[in-house]
Amino acid sequence: MTNTVYVLNGPNLNLLGMREPDIYGSETLDDIAGMLEDRGRELGLDIDLRQSNHEGHLVDWLHEAQAEGAKAVLLNAGAYTHTSIALLDAIRAIRTPVIEVHLSDPSTREEFRHLSYVGMAAIETVQGFGAQSYSVALDAAAKL
Amino acid sequence: MTNTVYVLNGPNLNLLGMREPDIYGSETLDDIAGMLEDRGRELGLDIDLRQSNHEGHLVDWLHEAQAEGAKAVLLNAGAYTHTSIALLDAIRAIRTPVIEVHLSDPSTREEFRHLSYVGMAAIETVQGFGAQSYSVALDAAAKL
Amino acid sequence: MTNTVYVLNGPNLNLLGMREPDIYGSETLDDIAGMLEDRGRELGLDIDLRQSNHEGHLVDWLHEAQAEGAKAVLLNAGAYTHTSIALLDAIRAIRTPVIEVHLSDPSTREEFRHLSYVGMAAIETVQGFGAQSYSVALDAAAKL
Amino acid sequence: MTNTVYVLNGPNLNLLGMREPDIYGSETLDDIAGMLEDRGRELGLDIDLRQSNHEGHLVDWLHEAQAEGAKAVLLNAGAYTHTSIALLDAIRAIRTPVIEVHLSDPSTREEFRHLSYVGMAAIETVQGFGAQSYSVALDAAAKL
Amino acid sequence: MTNTVYVLNGPNLNLLGMREPDIYGSETLDDIAGMLEDRGRELGLDIDLRQSNHEGHLVDWLHEAQAEGAKAVLLNAGAYTHTSIALLDAIRAIRTPVIEVHLSDPSTREEFRHLSYVGMAAIETVQGFGAQSYSVALDAAAKL
Amino acid sequence: MTNTVYVLNGPNLNLLGMREPDIYGSETLDDIAGMLEDRGRELGLDIDLRQSNHEGHLVDWLHEAQAEGAKAVLLNAGAYTHTSIALLDAIRAIRTPVIEVHLSDPSTREEFRHLSYVGMAAIETVQGFGAQSYSVALDAAAKL
Amino acid sequence: MTNTVYVLNGPNLNLLGMREPDIYGSETLDDIAGMLEDRGRELGLDIDLRQSNHEGHLVDWLHEAQAEGAKAVLLNAGAYTHTSIALLDAIRAIRTPVIEVHLSDPSTREEFRHLSYVGMAAIETVQGFGAQSYSVALDAAAKL
Amino acid sequence: MTNTVYVLNGPNLNLLGMREPDIYGSETLDDIAGMLEDRGRELGLDIDLRQSNHEGHLVDWLHEAQAEGAKAVLLNAGAYTHTSIALLDAIRAIRTPVIEVHLSDPSTREEFRHLSYVGMAAIETVQGFGAQSYSVALDAAAKL
Amino acid sequence: MTNTVYVLNGPNLNLLGMREPDIYGSETLDDIAGMLEDRGRELGLDIDLRQSNHEGHLVDWLHEAQAEGAKAVLLNAGAYTHTSIALLDAIRAIRTPVIEVHLSDPSTREEFRHLSYVGMAAIETVQGFGAQSYSVALDAAAKL
Amino acid sequence: MTNTVYVLNGPNLNLLGMREPDIYGSETLDDIAGMLEDRGRELGLDIDLRQSNHEGHLVDWLHEAQAEGAKAVLLNAGAYTHTSIALLDAIRAIRTPVIEVHLSDPSTREEFRHLSYVGMAAIETVQGFGAQSYSVALDAAAKL
Amino acid sequence: MTNTVYVLNGPNLNLLGMREPDIYGSETLDDIAGMLEDRGRELGLDIDLRQSNHEGHLVDWLHEAQAEGAKAVLLNAGAYTHTSIALLDAIRAIRTPVIEVHLSDPSTREEFRHLSYVGMAAIETVQGFGAQSYSVALDAAAKL
Amino acid sequence: MTNTVYVLNGPNLNLLGMREPDIYGSETLDDIAGMLEDRGRELGLDIDLRQSNHEGHLVDWLHEAQAEGAKAVLLNAGAYTHTSIALLDAIRAIRTPVIEVHLSDPSTREEFRHLSYVGMAAIETVQGFGAQSYSVALDAAAKL
Repeated sequence: MTNTVYVLNGPNLNLLGMREPDIYGSETLDDIAGMLEDRGRELGLDIDLRQSNHEGHLVDWLHEAQAEGAKAVLLNAGAYTHTSIALLDAIRAIRTPVIEVHLSDPSTREEFRHLSYVGMAAIETVQGFGAQSYSVALDAAAKL
Repeated sequence: MTNTVYVLNGPNLNLLGMREPDIYGSETLDDIAGMLEDRGRELGLDIDLRQSNHEGHLVDWLHEAQAEGAKAVLLNAGAYTHTSIALLDAIRAIRTPVIEVHLSDPSTREEFRHLSYVGMAAIETVQGFGAQSYSVALDAAAKL
Repeated sequence: MTNTVYVLNGPNLNLLGMREPDIYGSETLDDIAGMLEDRGRELGLDIDLRQSNHEGHLVDWLHEAQAEGAKAVLLNAGAYTHTSIALLDAIRAIRTPVIEVHLSDPSTREEFRHLSYVGMAAIETVQGFGAQSYSVALDAAAKL
Repeated sequence: MTNTVYVLNGPNLNLLGMREPDIYGSETLDDIAGMLEDRGRELGLDIDLRQSNHEGHLVDWLHEAQAEGAKAVLLNAGAYTHTSIALLDAIRAIRTPVIEVHLSDPSTREEFRHLSYVGMAAIETVQGFGAQSYSVALDAAAKL
Repeated sequence: MTNTVYVLNGPNLNLLGMREPDIYGSETLDDIAGMLEDRGRELGLDIDLRQSNHEGHLVDWLHEAQAEGAKAVLLNAGAYTHTSIALLDAIRAIRTPVIEVHLSDPSTREEFRHLSYVGMAAIETVQGFGAQSYSVALDAAAKL
Repeated sequence: MTNTVYVLNGPNLNLLGMREPDIYGSETLDDIAGMLEDRGRELGLDIDLRQSNHEGHLVDWLHEAQAEGAKAVLLNAGAYTHTSIALLDAIRAIRTPVIEVHLSDPSTREEFRHLSYVGMAAIETVQGFGAQSYSVALDAAAKL
Repeated sequence: MTNTVYVLNGPNLNLLGMREPDIYGSETLDDIAGMLEDRGRELGLDIDLRQSNHEGHLVDWLHEAQAEGAKAVLLNAGAYTHTSIALLDAIRAIRTPVIEVHLSDPSTREEFRHLSYVGMAAIETVQGFGAQSYSVALDAAAKL
Repeated sequence: MTNTVYVLNGPNLNLLGMREPDIYGSETLDDIAGMLEDRGRELGLDIDLRQSNHEGHLVDWLHEAQAEGAKAVLLNAGAYTHTSIALLDAIRAIRTPVIEVHLSDPSTREEFRHLSYVGMAAIETVQGFGAQSYSVALDAAAKL
Repeated sequence: MTNTVYVLNGPNLNLLGMREPDIYGSETLDDIAGMLEDRGRELGLDIDLRQSNHEGHLVDWLHEAQAEGAKAVLLNAGAYTHTSIALLDAIRAIRTPVIEVHLSDPSTREEFRHLSYVGMAAIETVQGFGAQSYSVALDAAAKL
Repeated sequence: MTNTVYVLNGPNLNLLGMREPDIYGSETLDDIAGMLEDRGRELGLDIDLRQSNHEGHLVDWLHEAQAEGAKAVLLNAGAYTHTSIALLDAIRAIRTPVIEVHLSDPSTREEFRHLSYVGMAAIETVQGFGAQSYSVALDAAAKL
Repeated sequence: MTNTVYVLNGPNLNLLGMREPDIYGSETLDDIAGMLEDRGRELGLDIDLRQSNHEGHLVDWLHEAQAEGAKAVLLNAGAYTHTSIALLDAIRAIRTPVIEVHLSDPSTREEFRHLSYVGMAAIETVQGFGAQSYSVALDAAAKL
Repeated sequence: MTNTVYVLNGPNLNLLGMREPDIYGSETLDDIAGMLEDRGRELGLDIDLRQSNHEGHLVDWLHEAQAEGAKAVLLNAGAYTHTSIALLDAIRAIRTPVIEVHLSDPSTREEFRHLSYVGMAAIETVQGFGAQSYSVALDAAAKL
């Protein structure tokens, strides 16, 4: 097993900081990457942060995480959280531990965001802390 | 802002004219592109028509529409209309106005086509006019 | 067949311009009538615009549209859109083509406005353009 | 029409043999490819087996199957079986016959796997035979 | 009590004979009136047949039936059958017996026609006999 | 085709007259048989009235009705009305016309009696007239 | 603003005192009018009590209440309470305050009476006091 | 029977005046107690106002109200209104009349506040008048 | 264990070839028996084909299959597929493997045919191949 | 009235002791018959224990219980508990008291076993005691 | 383990004998305590009967039952049966066996009483015997 | 504002370490208190950890947290998470920030644990980390 933590981000998260800042905050995904890399150095962890708007890429990368011996995956699947049984199956299909991350708390939003296929398979969830959700999850991953 | 209108088409629309003509009509997507370019010239608008069977490409292109300063997007998301929260989020994440377009009227078809995530965010909808739906929507975009 | 287009308006549309302007805009029904008559002259169409708060009148007028040989009906049934099976039956019972019109986009509003009985029978729908929805629909009617 | 049978596989099926073997068995997708090629030779059929985690690729390949004159498609859409209206539309849009295949029997699993959009359009279904499901389906395709 | 039987008809039934003849048959409401008057003479009953597209008129007439001492009401409420709690209340509010009549059998049609508010209060139902449904119901009313 | 009308009765109808008389009336099934035979003689029809508590017998007899060339079937399937897809299939499988009969009006009773599988296939329905429902239905059968 | 309070009554309330007295009490609408006029004199308020079985009239009168500068509306919409989105829209469209009134408490009755479109827009509700509900509401209106 | 009216208040009502003032107003529960005591003196009624965040206390106090011969209970059960079958049973178990009171109108708020177990047993409801709801209910209790 | 395969058929399948041939094909159950016996001889299997319209017989026969040491059961339970928990229990109660067979694909038909109690317990399913479904299933049984 | 207690058992209970022993225990139906006869002798009661896989037989026997003057019926309807409105009607149709019995507690099993039509009419229920459920119920029957 | 059986009673059961006697019978909780103590003496069991209207007390007492080594718990949770996941968790959290008891049969009452969280965890259920339900359950507890 | 963090624990959490260890882990609530106090000292935070089986106490303590100027509340409401609208209202009624904590991830458990009223108001959620969930949440609280 390596010391790499995959940080996988789903659709529209590339627009972070530009999109509905009252819900998602003003930090960009690059800001988050920087913050995680800093914290990763303290914890002895490498960060591999990626983003895609394609459900299939997220599935591909979850498989890769296992193949490459990643220590853990932080997964913010964005809207695919609520619609993707493929992601649920991917998380179950690998042995790499997956922590679900959300900037906001989906249960305070529209009803169709209350169902989480990711949450049915992820071992842990951190949500509602804005960009800090990633940081909290990284600390948790370090203890796995 | 440029004078370009993105005309984004979702899954199976590349088969237009070959597929279930009693529902979708006999015009192909190329026919529609030609028609829109003709009408665009009259209105002083450039047309950038694309099609993909990948949900992720539609999200990518919506982002690009804003980055490139498109005047508006006509979006016929096909089946993703009814299943894609990612598209809903993408439309909300950009400031470019999006007009929902359908060849047929989904509410006259199966119940699972009655829910429109696209419609929850699009500012306008034109549906049921066959290939003319695009044309009607383009005229509307010209007035934005 | 005559050159007359019936423009039928349902409950509360007589208050247009006075009622919830953030949803419905500031134009009155008279403004819309004027706009349609102007556009109708260009298209060689007579406009017969009516409004009633009675579901029964809308049914009566749909019947009359056929009896009088109207070219088309633009129907904004307001709240009856969502509750009236009688209107659905009336549209199916006549051969005059009916185009559904809405100022706002009902699918962005309360859930009980997501069901459209009118939409199950109307051949086309234009919604979300504010007062321009009527104009867009009239242009479409001219091409029938 | 050619003698080629497309065998299309959806998300996570690349992990076959490594993933939840009590549900999916211990044979890999390569094992299945080999088994089908052997059986294909007996039946005079060429096998074109592909896998993707992208819903869009499956739609693309269904279109290609028709364009290339494939004799039939065996489709194991994995999790997309239950969420993809795009696949339903793609199957209806082509004339190539599509046989739905599953290793396990989805109706014995979670409720969200009971709905099959693929099944609404596929002409036949074979499920629950493990890797033999493909073989049974191939024999059936030979008789089409 | 008088010998008059009210025969009340709801929305779109004035178009009988012209509307979707495969569902409703080719006889007009006048044909039915004539047939009922003929049969009424044999039974010693006067027929008062009315039609309106207004839910309110049907409620008014049910009240009038009681005030005028009608022997019975045959009620074909058309589409209001399925949406009108007001009719349910009206039938309960009067003591005149009400027999529900339908030309076709609503339970073989769309799901939203399966609920009958009229049926919750009417003492009897005759449906599916086409124009003969009225005749069957009149014979039944004669025996009350 | 013979002149015989099958009158098939489902579960618990053998207890008619003894069971919940406020709902089902005080006449026994023998009384109804007598009444129908009397009326049948006037109409030139033979009556073959049967009762069983077994869903399978009702299916068997519907098949027999067709095989024996019965003129029509009056079917009061009792509780099986609401649970038996097998009866629905049987009615569709034969060409003999089937008229649905009920003593009371199920739509005024518990919600699980509102669904009628029989009604989805029967051409006509008579309900709520007590024992007279059979008589009304027989008159209707005579006119077929 | 005038001192007039509109007291609008929906379908079947003209039969008050004659209809299901165990639910609605034995007082007539005239009795209630008299009681309200007496109480109105003490409060310096004029009463304009109307009743209609037509949903459209209730909408018309709500509009008129605003146009005539009524101080408030007491609205007992009867069965339309539960089915009329048009009334909901009408109450939202006017600025005159509307108080919802019911003789009985709908939540103790059938489930389809539990939904109140009127209640979604009315500022206040008084129900269950029999004829006194109107009186309680009038006192409340006086304090507005 | 005594002249005491119990005024029972459920969870979070102790924070009245501090909590979401746009929904609940700025008056505290002490203000309401004072107002009710003043009005009670005019009506010859003693007020026993209590508040608890415990569902069990509300049940206890309803029992006590009957044991002590209270004239009536005004019950604002707060959130327990929507979840407590125990309160429904308690109200049915006692003979003391209970009037349901709410400051706001729950039917204009989230869907899970639309169900009222209290309302299924309470004889009367006053809601939406802010602090005046209590006063209106007290006047009504005086007339019992 | 014997070499006998039970082929159990549920309600209405005795009419095969006469009933809705566009759904079920034109082969009779005798044709299918002949085809299976031919194929059985090649596979060294005896066929025991039975049909009943009685749910109870199907349960009885499943029990018998185990008691007689049948090699496998092919079960086409017809309409009981969707309503019979008793069949689900019977399949679970025996150790003889059961393969679910359907001529058509129920998921392309009415919604009430989408639930399969048989499928919850059967180890395999073959559907949509018309009469060939039996043959495909028999081959599969031979490999058990 | 006789001293006989009918003990009626539904589908698959003939396999008791052989079927899923972790749910149903290892005692056979004969063991239970013996146990009940022993206990019946002490209580002065005759036991008439029967089993059938046919819903219709259970209905027949309930009727017979009344006709023969049985003291009570212990009814374990197995899977028909959850699907048979015919049994509900049969229990209501007779005056013999019926006690519902289950070996396991259905509410701890699949959701479709949570609905009990038998329970809607049976006067008492004993479940979860394994074979002792019958014994407990017999003691209760002795006290009727 | 001691010889003590806890008999825990939920909300409103302190009013037993005074409350809706047609549903709950005329015996008081003291009568039941006496009856159980008499029967307990015969069985060598001590009875510790308690009642509270507080959900929390029932949870506390279930914990105490285990801590004190109670032989078993008879639990009539009243209305909390249907709403308390906390009770479900408490029963699962302890090893002391819990028998669910009800005076009436909840499945014959309102739909919201059909769900039993207690029943999901209790090992056995006795209901519908009135006060005898406790006695039957005590006998069962003696055999544990 | 003080430096105190309230750590509030709902029903059955006092049994932590003894109850279903595969779901909840083997640490007791005292272990968690010790761990939090250690970590609190590092962060300069006082810990006030409480547990109750009473929904009302949790509401009381949330109010107290605000009255005492607590810095934050960590709330593990146990089963009340899913049933308590009172807790939702309490969290909204106070200004003290509330972080939702769960040992396990409710979305991987029964469906009735998927709804979180606490989550609708809490600003953040940490779940699935076992006892570490509290620690992660405390670190997050320190940054508020």
